[in-house]
Amino acid sequence: MSDLKESTISTAVVYKGDFLDVRRDEVLLPNGETGTREWINHPGAVVIIPILPDGKIALIKQFRYAAGSEFIELPAGKLDAGEDPEDCALRELEEEIGYKANKIKFLANIHPAIGFANEIMGVFLAENLEKTEHNRDKDEFLELVPTTLSEAVNLVWENKITDVKSIIGLLWLQKIRISS
Amino acid sequence: MSDLKESTISTAVVYKGDFLDVRRDEVLLPNGETGTREWINHPGAVVIIPILPDGKIALIKQFRYAAGSEFIELPAGKLDAGEDPEDCALRELEEEIGYKANKIKFLANIHPAIGFANEIMGVFLAENLEKTEHNRDKDEFLELVPTTLSEAVNLVWENKITDVKSIIGLLWLQKIRISS
Repeated sequence: MSDLKESTISTAVVYKGDFLDVRRDEVLLPNGETGTREWINHPGAVVIIPILPDGKIALIKQFRYAAGSEFIELPAGKLDAGEDPEDCALRELEEEIGYKANKIKFLANIHPAIGFANEIMGVFLAENLEKTEHNRDKDEFLELVPTTLSEAVNLVWENKITDVKSIIGLLWLQKIRISS
Repeated sequence: MSDLKESTISTAVVYKGDFLDVRRDEVLLPNGETGTREWINHPGAVVIIPILPDGKIALIKQFRYAAGSEFIELPAGKLDAGEDPEDCALRELEEEIGYKANKIKFLANIHPAIGFANEIMGVFLAENLEKTEHNRDKDEFLELVPTTLSEAVNLVWENKITDVKSIIGLLWLQKIRISS
């Protein structure tokens, strides 16, 4: 990968908020010149495909302020500092929708925004769910929308599910179901 | 969507760089309390699925500084101010890989990072390609990697293509090919 690589000359934190950590780096380009790269330092995240006891997928409906509208999504969340992605998936699932997963399987890592963030998101399949209690963040509001896989995949191809992590999670589940 | 909506109380630009436009807003939450939301104001983007004259897909290999490694991707780019997404797709395709598309079709809009950006990305299928000359940005370096659809889809399921826009574009193409 040597001939395309860009190396860091210097790095600066240009904004550090409660959530966003914004960097601006001077970099050495492959042609020997220098350039600047602005990017978000992200802790990493997970997205969970939760299979409810009746076989439906636990989709959620959530208002996303940055994007300015409601979205139908799979449950997801950011890693706490030092947290293992699988532990995060189990924690977020229980916190967001109130189900404990007795079986969890890693499917893939995806990169949501390689143009401006280092975020890596683990995709997990959660099965053998057991009802507990949800424990949402105090600024987190959502509704559970149990949906069959075929309905959910239709929503993808009708372009009604537009959130990338949810599209990819649902198509992964479809791929597994077809292959098995 | 009324009961999940968050309304803007105030907004502030907390960082404005050459590329990133970072906002921090005070918002009214559905329960009547207030919260803060930090987010990236993004111009929007496109991703293109270019079908080369020999039927292969024009994937590219590019080093992504934010994510710290090389990625196999579909060509993509950000909208210029006021630019129509289809015009952007045609422009970026020619600039990045040096092909003019005589047929372009909108497939879907996707949201790459609803947790922290308002980015909307249009997915376009580009066909009837004609060789011209590429005209890359002076800090843009990439290699063309022509790949069959079946090879590319295998790379998705082997988790070797991890960039979300590329995963979704390739699976859209597969869906179209299966349906037609």
